[in-house]
Amino acid sequence: MTYTIQQIADALGLPAVGDTSISIAKLAEPADAGPDDLALAMSPKYAQSLSDGSARAAMLWPGADWQEMGLKAAILPDRPRFAMSGLTRMMDPGQGFGAGIHPSAVIDETAELAEDVSVGPLAIVAAGAKIGAGSVIGPQCYIGTDAVLGKNAYLRDHVSIGARVRIGDDFIAQPGARIGGDGFSFVTAEPSTVEQTRKTLGDRGDTKAQQWTRIHTLGSVTIGNDVECGMNCTVDSGTIRNTVIGDGSKLDNLVHLGHNVVVGKNCLLCGQVGIAGSVTIGDNVVLGGQVGVSDNITIGDGVIAGGGTKILSNAPAGRSLLGYPATEMGKQIEGYKALRRLPRLLRDVAALKSQMGTSKDSETS
Amino acid sequence: MTYTIQQIADALGLPAVGDTSISIAKLAEPADAGPDDLALAMSPKYAQSLSDGSARAAMLWPGADWQEMGLKAAILPDRPRFAMSGLTRMMDPGQGFGAGIHPSAVIDETAELAEDVSVGPLAIVAAGAKIGAGSVIGPQCYIGTDAVLGKNAYLRDHVSIGARVRIGDDFIAQPGARIGGDGFSFVTAEPSTVEQTRKTLGDRGDTKAQQWTRIHTLGSVTIGNDVECGMNCTVDSGTIRNTVIGDGSKLDNLVHLGHNVVVGKNCLLCGQVGIAGSVTIGDNVVLGGQVGVSDNITIGDGVIAGGGTKILSNAPAGRSLLGYPATEMGKQIEGYKALRRLPRLLRDVAALKSQMGTSKDSETS
Amino acid sequence: MTYTIQQIADALGLPAVGDTSISIAKLAEPADAGPDDLALAMSPKYAQSLSDGSARAAMLWPGADWQEMGLKAAILPDRPRFAMSGLTRMMDPGQGFGAGIHPSAVIDETAELAEDVSVGPLAIVAAGAKIGAGSVIGPQCYIGTDAVLGKNAYLRDHVSIGARVRIGDDFIAQPGARIGGDGFSFVTAEPSTVEQTRKTLGDRGDTKAQQWTRIHTLGSVTIGNDVECGMNCTVDSGTIRNTVIGDGSKLDNLVHLGHNVVVGKNCLLCGQVGIAGSVTIGDNVVLGGQVGVSDNITIGDGVIAGGGTKILSNAPAGRSLLGYPATEMGKQIEGYKALRRLPRLLRDVAALKSQMGTSKDSETS
Repeated sequence: MTYTIQQIADALGLPAVGDTSISIAKLAEPADAGPDDLALAMSPKYAQSLSDGSARAAMLWPGADWQEMGLKAAILPDRPRFAMSGLTRMMDPGQGFGAGIHPSAVIDETAELAEDVSVGPLAIVAAGAKIGAGSVIGPQCYIGTDAVLGKNAYLRDHVSIGARVRIGDDFIAQPGARIGGDGFSFVTAEPSTVEQTRKTLGDRGDTKAQQWTRIHTLGSVTIGNDVECGMNCTVDSGTIRNTVIGDGSKLDNLVHLGHNVVVGKNCLLCGQVGIAGSVTIGDNVVLGGQVGVSDNITIGDGVIAGGGTKILSNAPAGRSLLGYPATEMGKQIEGYKALRRLPRLLRDVAALKSQMGTSKDSETS
Repeated sequence: MTYTIQQIADALGLPAVGDTSISIAKLAEPADAGPDDLALAMSPKYAQSLSDGSARAAMLWPGADWQEMGLKAAILPDRPRFAMSGLTRMMDPGQGFGAGIHPSAVIDETAELAEDVSVGPLAIVAAGAKIGAGSVIGPQCYIGTDAVLGKNAYLRDHVSIGARVRIGDDFIAQPGARIGGDGFSFVTAEPSTVEQTRKTLGDRGDTKAQQWTRIHTLGSVTIGNDVECGMNCTVDSGTIRNTVIGDGSKLDNLVHLGHNVVVGKNCLLCGQVGIAGSVTIGDNVVLGGQVGVSDNITIGDGVIAGGGTKILSNAPAGRSLLGYPATEMGKQIEGYKALRRLPRLLRDVAALKSQMGTSKDSETS
Repeated sequence: MTYTIQQIADALGLPAVGDTSISIAKLAEPADAGPDDLALAMSPKYAQSLSDGSARAAMLWPGADWQEMGLKAAILPDRPRFAMSGLTRMMDPGQGFGAGIHPSAVIDETAELAEDVSVGPLAIVAAGAKIGAGSVIGPQCYIGTDAVLGKNAYLRDHVSIGARVRIGDDFIAQPGARIGGDGFSFVTAEPSTVEQTRKTLGDRGDTKAQQWTRIHTLGSVTIGNDVECGMNCTVDSGTIRNTVIGDGSKLDNLVHLGHNVVVGKNCLLCGQVGIAGSVTIGDNVVLGGQVGVSDNITIGDGVIAGGGTKILSNAPAGRSLLGYPATEMGKQIEGYKALRRLPRLLRDVAALKSQMGTSKDSETS
């Protein structure tokens, strides 16, 4: 499918200049762009490599001197980063999944599929499941008993949806995403070493080794509208009530949500984030890659945590965090700098003590 | 399925009081509980929200004043946390998997299935595999060549069991669990930069870049009785002998065990724990979420490590650990507190040096 | 399949001594070895346990006194670690996958399979996909639209290959590996709190909460020759150009590569490593387990990072790193040692201040 520059500009409501009748086959980075590509060079830094390719047209930034760059046409969005969203949606070639129900799919006769649902080869839709209109169930997916998906779900291959999971509209799941596993919840007949260690921060008292007995998972998962779950991410069901993911929140690959977790609206949980059981996360929270959150704590609205942060206690709304344990971002960076001066500080203090005639004490310590 | 309070109390051997003929359809959190639910309010804190719901019956704690709470009946277990285990097992609605062998399953004619085994749609049981009595092989699972599962295995969907894996009774695997992948073991023709860096803690000498050649994985995995593996966790086979998981140990979602790892009995490895190759872990070890363990080390019996701990060297039995690198928990917490005072300490020492007339040296450093 | 010691030595080009007509059924660790096993005792430390088993033959080290150890025959390689590679390849029993196309596989009529390709039960090969000669597509795998695999690919079960992914020769994928998911790339209509926080390291200014809009993924993944991907690892497609993995690089289980990442040649990324979007990694880089790399940075050739390292900024070629944030390995270890002395240092400085008559200031701080 090709579009002219004018068609793209019209579809996205963006200003276009030059010969807007040029046809575009695909998008390309500036150095890779051929004469039928739309080069993406949305800052002066990226525009420098336009000359390494042979683009005739590019998406630039407001006021960019496109003619100086040797271009024949340009799109000049006010916020190029945001314009990328509509542009990439137009040009998305998709995965090529077929329409309709593949004959190899296994669909229980009590499942309800609304109009325009497609089910890929070797996918399973279990008893009582309901799939909303326009949804795509990818190859080899499993949709569990009495699960409900809203309209326009898009599941790639090998996705698991457990029994009684309820999902809103416009859900996207990447390959291998798992929603609705049993929670990791075990108990000992007598108080365990872990319970004791948590109370005392280390001292076990006379607790002794025991076997773990399983607490079964009776809840499921409730997911709002416009949620995306990345490849091989795992979302546990709640023990009694459901685990919850709010509208507009996005989970990256290999993210883990424990049982009873509540994620608010419009959160971003980046790759390999792990949220332990019964954590409550507010709205518009952004957790960088490999962030960990201890169980049973609360993360306020708007918290941002840098990559690798380990949040071990409640985080107030609006806080920016970094480090292990999580610390306010500016303080943590100050702390890192101070740390680098620590070896010299040790030497300085030793020298001071020596001057003060206290070096002997120091040596015996 | 409904039960009366009396039936529940009898089944679990717990004391019940009040109108124990009340019928219970399901469990609920206190604020969500309707008149046919058994509310779970097992501490005074949770009991406060009973008035937000309309429960007539609740599971409380020893000596709780259930009538004061407006309840008609109550169960009063000595250890409510442990009572949850039996109670949730009774009320578990399950995944709704069908009995018998689904016609779409692919079962090799040399596989041996004991009585009452069910195999879900599009599951595969390869040549020579043996499945114990009462086991449930979920939809789209793969059971590899000559693998052996004991009695009462319960595998949810998309589970992988590699060739020659041997598993005891009562095994549970969540969706996407992978047992028996090849180990991550590569070697260079000449000593590599990694070997050199490990020896010298940084200095590479004159080692040079090389290609990696694969060491093939000939071993498999041996798993004891009563083991559970979480969603998308990964357990590598051993190189020559088998990787081992002892009786009663539980792995949470996205846990990784490298080749040759030995996990003892009754361990809990929480979400995203990673154990590098050839680590030996004792019995009753509890590793919090995102804990990492370096290769070829030993973790003693009863070790507990808080979330995010990175264990880089042997950990003696009974130790409570926290931090990166792992440090005895109390010392680590003392260290975190000291760190927060470090920026002020730097200023103090600078002031002392100034007083001592050494400030000039300091400024030039 | 059995081999004599002589056949093994000849196949691997290694020196053998003693009765090299002894037949070997399999490899074994010294203490487990029976009379028909080849014991692997490639250092004096491992040789000590030969007497716990009943091996007649062993692979040892140059100059080892095999007769003193009571052996009848031995293989004495110059670099035993490297000899393991050829030896384990010879003795690998494999997964027992069948030859040919299983009748339950779903293969689009436009897919092209070269000679000697096998496709396991319930696997899917989508439209336009091309599979190179000698490749093994394991059970329940999904090969996406127009994907290209080179010669001798070996995919175990449940692997996902997305649309338009291009892979070289000798590719290995462990169960559940996912190649070619959509990138995690979202944008807000106005500048977001994250953009603001990155600029200011903490201060949000007056940015406000917003919804996330998806940037679609138009690129795919390009993988070189001789690459291996571990169980449940996830490799995102690039946004415009392809994500790239160079020749000879190996990804362990649960490794995550974000969109647009470029991994060079002969890298090892160990278990649970996470690489955020648009990172460029050079050749011969080794990242230990659970290492994290922030987005949009560059890791130079030959960098080595110890387990758990979080790399937050560019790393120059040849650097050995450890810690969070990543620091040159020797400095980090010095820093860890200094940290342990910090509580005492605080007390020392308090004492010095007291001696200097400044203790009062300190108490008020």
